[in-house]
Amino acid sequence: MGLKPKWIWYYGDYEIYHSNLLNSRREAYGDDYPAFISYPGIHMNVGFVRECELAEATAFRVKANGKYQVRIDNEPQRAVNGVYSMPAGKHELIVYVCKIHGLPAVFVYGDKIVSDETWKVSDRTWECVSVGCVPGYTSPDDNVEVFPFCYERVDYVCETAYPNGTLYDFGKELFGFLYVNGIGKDFDVYYGESVEEALDTENAILMERNISEKRVKLRQRAFRYVYIRSEVPAGDVYAEYEYLPLNDVGSFICDDENVEKIFEMSAYTLHLNSREFYLDGIKRDRWVWGGDAYQSFMINPYLYFDREIIKRTILSLLGTPPYRQHVNTINDYSFYLIISVYDYWFLTDDSDFIRKIYSKVKALFEFCAGRLDKNGFVCERPGDWIFIDWADSLDKEGPHCAEQILLWQATRCMKKIAEICGENYKSSVDENKLKEMIYTYFYDKQAGGFIDGFQSGQRVVNRHQNILALLYDFTNEEESNLILEKILLNDEITQITTPYFKFFELMALCKNNRVEIAQRSISSYWGGMLRLGATSVWEEYNPAMSGKAHYAMYNEPYGKSLCHAWGSGPICFLGKYVAGVRPTSAGYRTWEICPNPGIYKSFCATVPLPEGKVRVEYTQGKINVLSDCGGGVLCWKGEQYPVQKNVPFSVSE
Amino acid sequence: MGLKPKWIWYYGDYEIYHSNLLNSRREAYGDDYPAFISYPGIHMNVGFVRECELAEATAFRVKANGKYQVRIDNEPQRAVNGVYSMPAGKHELIVYVCKIHGLPAVFVYGDKIVSDETWKVSDRTWECVSVGCVPGYTSPDDNVEVFPFCYERVDYVCETAYPNGTLYDFGKELFGFLYVNGIGKDFDVYYGESVEEALDTENAILMERNISEKRVKLRQRAFRYVYIRSEVPAGDVYAEYEYLPLNDVGSFICDDENVEKIFEMSAYTLHLNSREFYLDGIKRDRWVWGGDAYQSFMINPYLYFDREIIKRTILSLLGTPPYRQHVNTINDYSFYLIISVYDYWFLTDDSDFIRKIYSKVKALFEFCAGRLDKNGFVCERPGDWIFIDWADSLDKEGPHCAEQILLWQATRCMKKIAEICGENYKSSVDENKLKEMIYTYFYDKQAGGFIDGFQSGQRVVNRHQNILALLYDFTNEEESNLILEKILLNDEITQITTPYFKFFELMALCKNNRVEIAQRSISSYWGGMLRLGATSVWEEYNPAMSGKAHYAMYNEPYGKSLCHAWGSGPICFLGKYVAGVRPTSAGYRTWEICPNPGIYKSFCATVPLPEGKVRVEYTQGKINVLSDCGGGVLCWKGEQYPVQKNVPFSVSE
Repeated sequence: MGLKPKWIWYYGDYEIYHSNLLNSRREAYGDDYPAFISYPGIHMNVGFVRECELAEATAFRVKANGKYQVRIDNEPQRAVNGVYSMPAGKHELIVYVCKIHGLPAVFVYGDKIVSDETWKVSDRTWECVSVGCVPGYTSPDDNVEVFPFCYERVDYVCETAYPNGTLYDFGKELFGFLYVNGIGKDFDVYYGESVEEALDTENAILMERNISEKRVKLRQRAFRYVYIRSEVPAGDVYAEYEYLPLNDVGSFICDDENVEKIFEMSAYTLHLNSREFYLDGIKRDRWVWGGDAYQSFMINPYLYFDREIIKRTILSLLGTPPYRQHVNTINDYSFYLIISVYDYWFLTDDSDFIRKIYSKVKALFEFCAGRLDKNGFVCERPGDWIFIDWADSLDKEGPHCAEQILLWQATRCMKKIAEICGENYKSSVDENKLKEMIYTYFYDKQAGGFIDGFQSGQRVVNRHQNILALLYDFTNEEESNLILEKILLNDEITQITTPYFKFFELMALCKNNRVEIAQRSISSYWGGMLRLGATSVWEEYNPAMSGKAHYAMYNEPYGKSLCHAWGSGPICFLGKYVAGVRPTSAGYRTWEICPNPGIYKSFCATVPLPEGKVRVEYTQGKINVLSDCGGGVLCWKGEQYPVQKNVPFSVSE
Repeated sequence: MGLKPKWIWYYGDYEIYHSNLLNSRREAYGDDYPAFISYPGIHMNVGFVRECELAEATAFRVKANGKYQVRIDNEPQRAVNGVYSMPAGKHELIVYVCKIHGLPAVFVYGDKIVSDETWKVSDRTWECVSVGCVPGYTSPDDNVEVFPFCYERVDYVCETAYPNGTLYDFGKELFGFLYVNGIGKDFDVYYGESVEEALDTENAILMERNISEKRVKLRQRAFRYVYIRSEVPAGDVYAEYEYLPLNDVGSFICDDENVEKIFEMSAYTLHLNSREFYLDGIKRDRWVWGGDAYQSFMINPYLYFDREIIKRTILSLLGTPPYRQHVNTINDYSFYLIISVYDYWFLTDDSDFIRKIYSKVKALFEFCAGRLDKNGFVCERPGDWIFIDWADSLDKEGPHCAEQILLWQATRCMKKIAEICGENYKSSVDENKLKEMIYTYFYDKQAGGFIDGFQSGQRVVNRHQNILALLYDFTNEEESNLILEKILLNDEITQITTPYFKFFELMALCKNNRVEIAQRSISSYWGGMLRLGATSVWEEYNPAMSGKAHYAMYNEPYGKSLCHAWGSGPICFLGKYVAGVRPTSAGYRTWEICPNPGIYKSFCATVPLPEGKVRVEYTQGKINVLSDCGGGVLCWKGEQYPVQKNVPFSVSE
């Protein structure tokens, strides 16, 4: 019958388990530094259930991660030489698995009976839910507690002797194990994303001291440079790169060769941060953050279109109700997560996933909705962190407008999520009422947009809430144009300094037909990092700074991450607004190509599609399109041209 | 200053962690058989907090179970040679501890700073609660994941050769490790509470097959007999008894020497089941059950008066809200647990413990109250088990009267628990209304008591609900006398066959001045087991059975536990109603001695008190009392005599 057995577990537990492992693995200055949130638990004692109906008796084997018991029609079974028997007819097979220290899971394999997504699971209450399973665990010898990364040896490209040790340069940032052989006497290892960091034996974020083994494999860490402080030189130093094998489909080249470099630097940055889940930064924070992940989800379909990492990341961030704190403790990140769930659906049309997480998403939304103030505004409750962005200019006294717009968008998404699941959900938040209130309290006609907050009386105008208003179509056309003119394109309004909100700003500009401005912004902002020698995108970049000051953040000389996923936005911008490839209905059943060369004289982009890719080329005033999927429409100069599968199509200006 | 450092953890997590370990350790027929309930999680990532105010700087060390980070005033600290420094003045010390596979805990020790019950702990939300700590973990080398049992070598008293192996008799039931040395070739070990069980290599509940080690220490199990099936005889076989060092204070002897034996058998049974928590039975179920524990709590103060095991057991059974299933899935057991919490307070006056668990108890009560039917009666919801007792005669169609009386008592206890905590709690259950409804639906004047249920129309009368009505003073005097006469003392009403409800029956009889009948019941029922050679009390005893049939239960030939805690009731009965020692206010601030020799011509009882003991002797019509605590009053023949500390006092009839 060719049934494919898979390891199965209680739905969502794999992601929570690996998320807890990941969060406990963080370190700083040689000390442990676990992520500072409450860790959700998993189900330690579960029962996997399968109704079987067989014409004849069959045999099967069981491999469990944990203590287990096999029951047929509630009768305990004993294996004979490792084999269980299932009689003909209709029977209920249950495998109970219990593991206190780990992830309970099971692998059942036989000719007619195998464990797969058709099974149900209970946590020993009367309720059964779907089992979880992910690609990559298909053999009885697989260990579900080990994440299936790939490994590859990497050698350093250059070494430099110093009075007390040696500096090794691996050419670019990487993540993996460092092997140091041949010293065998107390030595220290200091890692650096920059030369300065590796050589600063007091302040390097990652370090390991007092190593005495002759041959040592150090734990996984991020670095480009490694400084080994030792009296004796090492005999042999190399790294083992640990990575997820995600194949790039997306690419972008154009007449400005820096743009290609920006695309590649962005792609490499996203790859390093694409692991069990989307990390924010690979050196630090090494944490799954709702806002950072939201951007990675947007970039993903323009680089490698991988659904699995989005689902894993959403499950990791959702954790387990009842909720007692916001996602990463940040109000905005709870909203981004709810919005991400809807966006994932629109990207993939994967209603099955949405149904499986519906109760968690609803619980999260209700947690948010249960903490509003008397006006129905998001405010700061004990334990909350109103983040929005790293920007001192934000006026966070009282409710901040950006949070309200996110609540508005999350409310709309929650409504659509309920519809997708066929649930009749009545939200306690009325989106229309909320919109009215936002206008009443935050809209400033003279300023041409929204103020940060009303409580301080300062009427501060920052870009953030205005960017979000454009991003989510909160404003009408006239208001949007006013925001563009008086705020986004107004140099007197404090500039964004993180690639995070810079990416949102790019998207907001493009949605409002300012692709050229976005293109220039990429060349100056991302190009600026490139010119400073960056091999991956930074957590923050302020062109006004110079030298080592670029590496500092959080009051730490090397606190800034130099490989931060939220810097990879150009990939999405170039694919979505220059090549112009976008789904127009859920799961790309229909999609469009609306190229906008802007300031580029020519470009050639390849953009992934759910089941293939499309190449969009612009050269000498001509658009050439070749797609290996159907369903697309090319929009060019006011005309629409259906795109045939595998048929090259060209149209001139 | 002599500060005593203690290992500390998130309050309640130690008990839940060890409860999960215990529940996962169960086995049957050589297979794992974890307890079939949902296992509550613990807090994997916590922060221990202490406000310090010191005249001068001091140093301290930290030992953590898990990854940890020390912070002073939110600044990460590095140890120098293992020592941290705390400056003079007012500072906040936090130790963050994270452990994914285990119990996060910390031990801080210095001259001026030590970890103890004055610390607070958060699970990295903004809420801080009390830390947990128990006696027995006071050294940095202690491992909080290992329960501090005591160990003692025990040798078998007799061996018998069989054609395929050897039977070893250890003289009485014990629990511990078995050591088998000198075989070194495939052999099997079968354990038995009876000879028959050990020799039945198919049906012995505990067994281990195919052992090939030359020297082997088998995992902890319960047994009196061990049958080793092997071609070669063992060179050396012995056991290591694993136990909790609880010192018996209580004792009872009288002119009927069987009563002393019953007391001793009961005491030994309770001891074997007094472990991390109160177990029901030591062979099986090896599980913490709310109803069984409730009885152990009642017996405890008459044998060794140990508060710790009661607190541990309550915390284990409470687990973690939100509740999705009843305690052990059994409705009655949720009620017994709530009643136990109040009873513990009355026994100890330990309001601190009650306050610490208040939110959990309230959540459990509300879980129960949220599942009533339209009449406000307890009914069977999905996942519920209406247990009451092992008795086929029970009419469980629709709401059963016993459950309603338990709800009534739990409601009253919940109210008092809230009062103890100074909480203004409004229960959704009105105890007076409920009482009225119980009379309306279940009281049968003609039967002289309460029927099981009304739904079947059978109007079945069992003892259970009528016993509970007497036990909790549900009925008025006239009704109580009617219940005694027409139900409890009526041989036409089906007899109780478990020592469990037999114990409740004894208590109900005694509360209504029928001590003689209870004394005769002990001699016939418990004495019956004794005459059959029991060394510990059985889970069930039906005098009508004979031979091996006594060992069978649950459709298994040796399914019955021959060492079941709920059989230890005579200890409580003899201390509470024959010696007559009982608290009359919380924590024995006042207490009474109301001896009732009944059918005994003489007796000498020692009964524990919270801080000592009292000896009550009756001989030749004279009562002699000697107590090493004050506060007591002797009630004898209608007179009251204050009992002076350490002053012998006698009074004649």
